[in-house]
Amino acid sequence: MLNTVPADRVTHSDLANAVRVLAMDAVEQAKSGHPGLPMGAADIATVLFTKFLKYDAADPTWPDRDRFILSAGHGSMLLYALLHLTGVKGMTIEELKNFRKLDSKTPGHPENFMTPGVETTTGPLGQGIATAVGFALAERMLNAEYGDDLVDHHTYVLASDGDLMEGISQEAIALAGHLKLNRMIVLWDDNGISIDGPLSISDSVDQVKRFQACGWNAVRIDGHDPKAIQRAISRAQKSDKPTLIACKTTIGFGAPKKAGTSKAHGEPLGAEELAGAKAALGWSHEPFVIPDNIRDAWAKAGKKGRRLRKAWADRLSALPADRRGEFERRVRGVRPEGLGDAVARLKDRLAAEPQNVATRKASEIALEVITEAVPELVLGSADLTPSNNTKTKNLTAISPGNFAGRYIHYGIREHGMAAAMNGIALHGGYVPAGATFLVFTDYARPAMRIASLAGIPAVYVMTHDSIGLGEDGPTHQPVEHLAALRSMPKMRVFRPADAIETAEAWQMALERTDGPTTLALTRQNLQQVRKEGGAKNLSATGAYELSPANGKARATIFASGSEVEIALAAQKLLAEQNFEARVVSVPSLDLFLAQPEKVRHEIIGDAPIRVAVEAAVRFGWDSVIGPDGIFVGMHGFGASAPYKDLYKHFGITAEAVAEKVLRTHNL
Amino acid sequence: MLNTVPADRVTHSDLANAVRVLAMDAVEQAKSGHPGLPMGAADIATVLFTKFLKYDAADPTWPDRDRFILSAGHGSMLLYALLHLTGVKGMTIEELKNFRKLDSKTPGHPENFMTPGVETTTGPLGQGIATAVGFALAERMLNAEYGDDLVDHHTYVLASDGDLMEGISQEAIALAGHLKLNRMIVLWDDNGISIDGPLSISDSVDQVKRFQACGWNAVRIDGHDPKAIQRAISRAQKSDKPTLIACKTTIGFGAPKKAGTSKAHGEPLGAEELAGAKAALGWSHEPFVIPDNIRDAWAKAGKKGRRLRKAWADRLSALPADRRGEFERRVRGVRPEGLGDAVARLKDRLAAEPQNVATRKASEIALEVITEAVPELVLGSADLTPSNNTKTKNLTAISPGNFAGRYIHYGIREHGMAAAMNGIALHGGYVPAGATFLVFTDYARPAMRIASLAGIPAVYVMTHDSIGLGEDGPTHQPVEHLAALRSMPKMRVFRPADAIETAEAWQMALERTDGPTTLALTRQNLQQVRKEGGAKNLSATGAYELSPANGKARATIFASGSEVEIALAAQKLLAEQNFEARVVSVPSLDLFLAQPEKVRHEIIGDAPIRVAVEAAVRFGWDSVIGPDGIFVGMHGFGASAPYKDLYKHFGITAEAVAEKVLRTHNL
Repeated sequence: MLNTVPADRVTHSDLANAVRVLAMDAVEQAKSGHPGLPMGAADIATVLFTKFLKYDAADPTWPDRDRFILSAGHGSMLLYALLHLTGVKGMTIEELKNFRKLDSKTPGHPENFMTPGVETTTGPLGQGIATAVGFALAERMLNAEYGDDLVDHHTYVLASDGDLMEGISQEAIALAGHLKLNRMIVLWDDNGISIDGPLSISDSVDQVKRFQACGWNAVRIDGHDPKAIQRAISRAQKSDKPTLIACKTTIGFGAPKKAGTSKAHGEPLGAEELAGAKAALGWSHEPFVIPDNIRDAWAKAGKKGRRLRKAWADRLSALPADRRGEFERRVRGVRPEGLGDAVARLKDRLAAEPQNVATRKASEIALEVITEAVPELVLGSADLTPSNNTKTKNLTAISPGNFAGRYIHYGIREHGMAAAMNGIALHGGYVPAGATFLVFTDYARPAMRIASLAGIPAVYVMTHDSIGLGEDGPTHQPVEHLAALRSMPKMRVFRPADAIETAEAWQMALERTDGPTTLALTRQNLQQVRKEGGAKNLSATGAYELSPANGKARATIFASGSEVEIALAAQKLLAEQNFEARVVSVPSLDLFLAQPEKVRHEIIGDAPIRVAVEAAVRFGWDSVIGPDGIFVGMHGFGASAPYKDLYKHFGITAEAVAEKVLRTHNL
Repeated sequence: MLNTVPADRVTHSDLANAVRVLAMDAVEQAKSGHPGLPMGAADIATVLFTKFLKYDAADPTWPDRDRFILSAGHGSMLLYALLHLTGVKGMTIEELKNFRKLDSKTPGHPENFMTPGVETTTGPLGQGIATAVGFALAERMLNAEYGDDLVDHHTYVLASDGDLMEGISQEAIALAGHLKLNRMIVLWDDNGISIDGPLSISDSVDQVKRFQACGWNAVRIDGHDPKAIQRAISRAQKSDKPTLIACKTTIGFGAPKKAGTSKAHGEPLGAEELAGAKAALGWSHEPFVIPDNIRDAWAKAGKKGRRLRKAWADRLSALPADRRGEFERRVRGVRPEGLGDAVARLKDRLAAEPQNVATRKASEIALEVITEAVPELVLGSADLTPSNNTKTKNLTAISPGNFAGRYIHYGIREHGMAAAMNGIALHGGYVPAGATFLVFTDYARPAMRIASLAGIPAVYVMTHDSIGLGEDGPTHQPVEHLAALRSMPKMRVFRPADAIETAEAWQMALERTDGPTTLALTRQNLQQVRKEGGAKNLSATGAYELSPANGKARATIFASGSEVEIALAAQKLLAEQNFEARVVSVPSLDLFLAQPEKVRHEIIGDAPIRVAVEAAVRFGWDSVIGPDGIFVGMHGFGASAPYKDLYKHFGITAEAVAEKVLRTHNL
């Protein structure tokens, strides 16, 4: 516990009430927002920020700060009030007055990319607590590498009932409990109220018992008793397990009529109720006005980590230059220099010794090289390690209490994995890559969306990417997932055609620092279609001419992944009929569509017939081939059978492509 | 407990081993599949099917049968062996020999639409147990309506470790525990093995304690001890809570080297190991051969519910014709006759008194009528009832132990809700409609995919469908969700433009019996753009000309939902410039794209300029407007601000549409 008694004659209640009234005022002014949580959780947050949280408002990016995650993102004004009061630069009172207005630093839900001091985007319930697992895990892993001198902090979460009702919370708490992430402390705003009414109309879970069943400490306290909060956090810090502190609170604390009801949750209090609340709290100041003594006390709290930060900076400076440089590079998210060269050498090797392997295997081959070149790359799988080919020989797995390692067995928890990856990346020091089957991106989608929105460079290694997985059948065969992921803003999707494109996709994924990348990889073996190596990354435009026509092309065949070899075979069949076609490989349709018009037109070319071949739905491909283009792919769900039978059954063959081209030509 | 002692001298082990060897043989023959679970769980399933399960293999659709859900769908051969041995029609030994082959009744994972006796599609982990909640809930609700004479059965689930690790399981068990669904009994195949190795490398949850925390009975037993299994199920049947029976088992039971390891999970045993397993089990017969005495004993078990079924049929016959007819109509999934007329009358009323309301409110107006016309429609929300407008005045909510009602407070459990809806629909007797915000379809997507694949007529009432929700910001503003849902095979998406289209969309959703429908509805008020009522459902082709050009059209403006009024305003602006445009409303892009080419061409028309206006991403619209068409919509994530500011900020205005059309025209 940090010793920072507030300024003279300012009480805990004064400090907490400052948070409450700023939240009430801002929501009222915005005519929109959620006053109930900030009012109810102000005591918890005040104790945490004034007594415990290791931070320095002057540098909200200090790598060894404690992290505070507002999982209940709808209570954003709680966080904005705290950032303002502690003195984070840019978080002026004007920003609070512009709550929920365009371009303010105070959007409806917290966004790490808009607001200094916000650790992660939250709002979709359950994401914050699950992301926090990644923060807490990255802290321990980086600690294992760099020691207590550089990495020694906590991850605190403020969670709501809704966070704990979402299924992702189970994945998160099970993983944190299993790994004994004792630096993770969850403060649950146990207010017993949901939007539909009292929580009791939809829930009866004994959360304390549930967390204990998952390997956590869990205690109940009065969430309005600062001493109880203080004691509980102190104890949590000493535990060898993560801790849940169930803080019984009153939503909308202070509001005379709405407190303790769902009416306090998601709308302004209204003038009368707001006045009543201020009276009840003994607050007599104008809207947005905080008396100097309270302001000073909060400012003091905002500086309480300064000494620690300076001492930390001294320790960092004292390190050998190499080690210091490497630490700084990693926490800043700068990629190492050797990646491009390593990939180029790999491509040369593959050109010399072609590998006709599944792209999941090609990914493993690439990772053997890349994990050496990028020491911050941390891999893992949601219990499909032998199928995803993600655990290269040089990686060892972390285990409960032992965080020296670069591989994570996430368990059968795709959603928890993706959220933890967000936290690992946002914490800094690591680039997370996690794996499952492509079809199960559906389970992880809300966290993948956070990665896209918040600009998080995570890599999703998604194998078994089509009917090509065969016998497991339609529940396991993605057909719409490529389209669904391509439609997500800022998500980049690669579906490489062979071992060389796979290496290029990995390079692109790791060089990217402003958003996530999905790699869609096959279970089945593929021909290596690329014959040349070299440093130039042909996949960088999303599409490129792989095989030109022998003369003027009368058709262009676009294909991705496993269907590129079908396109090449069709080209050959057509040539035998004296019909010239060219083949464009499209490892990333979304990246291609993002190219300047000139680049797109050049690659698309002017052959009159356009064909797309992909063992997935057509949706999205008309952007390339047009509504009248030929599509050879899936028109519905897959089926259970050996994959070669499926390709025939669904008509995704070179013969079908050639036949359709010729039929169209002869129309 | 049903008294069905097996035929002479056939032991429990004989019966269970028959299941084991059929599974081993079929996986071996298919060269693909999962022998470990059937071998490990054969004792559990044998006790359940021979001693408890109320069913008659001669009629696997008997409405009052007990339901058995294989949540661990990868163990499909367990289920197929049981269906074969009990004598379900069509489940011949040939089907087992064709395991995982094209068009067999024995696909890799169970599919209710392919195999008689399979209650629901499973495979994606967690779906089965969560779907079972819906089965158990529908049973109690139908019981509340029709009494013990007609509805009085159990829902049994066989679940794996993976099912319980998935987050959806928490939503499911919390909901079942809260509602005291004591007819639900989960048999957990507690084998301690996952694909990556021993479960202990990724999990430490005390599942018994966790279920108890969620309001369940939970006990541990030896899953290979038939007496213990029998006792535990007997006790579970007497409880007032749902029950978890944690059955400690050995995966791949009998296999000399692979039993108890992850090697038994997901691949054929191989000739040697298979021979060793048969020797260890004392099984000396040829592959796929079951001795007559064991076959007879199983066949006897398959008939043990026949007497009960006949007695039930007698009770049904004894009912008054009206009541019997209504019960039969509902369990057969036939819609009532009055729906079309009721909607037509509503449309006439709306035409006479236009309602400029949000489509979520229009949905409520429609539901006031439709809930009367369709008594089997059961509504609910994932704790957004006041925002989703789903609880009409005539609906009362069910509550723990009291199942008379047609509204379900699902809690903040979107995924659990969607899966429970699958179970409610598949059980029969109800059409489920569940609500949340459109952006949170991401949370429910795996269950929505099961609905699409399995042809389940569920309705998703998804409000707050764009940046039009305003201040909550980008985490709550769907931009890619329409595309992601439209790309899903068999999912139908409606985004109605006004109150009349909303009524039409509801009609289409409820008349559909072979798949799910998503309704995307606004938070913000809209103009009523349709002026005429009548019985003809204009939305039935997915798109139609709403406002013709005054003369020959030089541009067609396509729009959906809240952007239709923008399209109409743009048409007017253009007319002022003497530029004639027509407006096509597209309430369902996916339904439109599924129309015959002739219908599509006619509606698209031949105006040289095509524009699409939708406050969402472009992805998919090129199928209508082509790659060179004009798109006015979103190009990335939204932002937090009042919605009118956002429409201006993102340039989704009538002025922008008109300006772009004229600019293109003048090129």
